[in-house]
Amino acid sequence: MDPDALAKAFVEHYYSTFDTNRTGLAGLYQDGSMLTFEGQKIQGAQNIVAKLTSLPFQQCQHSITTVDCQPSGVNGGMLVFVSGNLQLAGEQHALKFSQMFHLIPTPQGSYYVLNDIFRLNYA
Amino acid sequence: MDPDALAKAFVEHYYSTFDTNRTGLAGLYQDGSMLTFEGQKIQGAQNIVAKLTSLPFQQCQHSITTVDCQPSGVNGGMLVFVSGNLQLAGEQHALKFSQMFHLIPTPQGSYYVLNDIFRLNYA
Repeated sequence: MDPDALAKAFVEHYYSTFDTNRTGLAGLYQDGSMLTFEGQKIQGAQNIVAKLTSLPFQQCQHSITTVDCQPSGVNGGMLVFVSGNLQLAGEQHALKFSQMFHLIPTPQGSYYVLNDIFRLNYA
Repeated sequence: MDPDALAKAFVEHYYSTFDTNRTGLAGLYQDGSMLTFEGQKIQGAQNIVAKLTSLPFQQCQHSITTVDCQPSGVNGGMLVFVSGNLQLAGEQHALKFSQMFHLIPTPQGSYYVLNDIFRLNYA
């Protein structure tokens, strides 16, 4: 599969899972996974999903503006860089965000998220 | 050195070089380095610096808002994620940008940029 198409498919899967079934994100992380969310560092699939499900908004919708990807040089890993808008339920204006993922292939032919850094741009 | 302090020092060095002596960035890239600049993919130190020095603005000033970093899991590599403002000479409003770097240690005890993805947020 073309890396750009793969990155785009991952990103669409990630945000649609985030917006409809946030606990379902657990399957995309492993014990060594790291999330930096607005500067807060969290490690491990369980802690990451606990963080994401305890954010102070229950309903949201991500829309993707750009997806860029590059091979990370590590075991078939892929860096994916996203910019987009995050619409929170009940809020008039969407927030801009940017986020990067480092995806690592699994023996099952899928990918998991080793690195995840998220920032709101407050635009 | 603490990874966060190292990431911050790299970022300050990178943008002060960009703003004062853009050709000096050549030393931070190698032949295998990749830049994705607003969706355009460029490979190799020479091509990357040719791109950066031919941007349609000669004078600019980056100011950094946030710097996040994580180990990339590759040979002591480090992922650095930056958000900030880019002020172009003669323009009234600064542009928001976000950028990620994948830094790899060199045998000389320094780092080079293997991956670089840059996006303006048009805010």
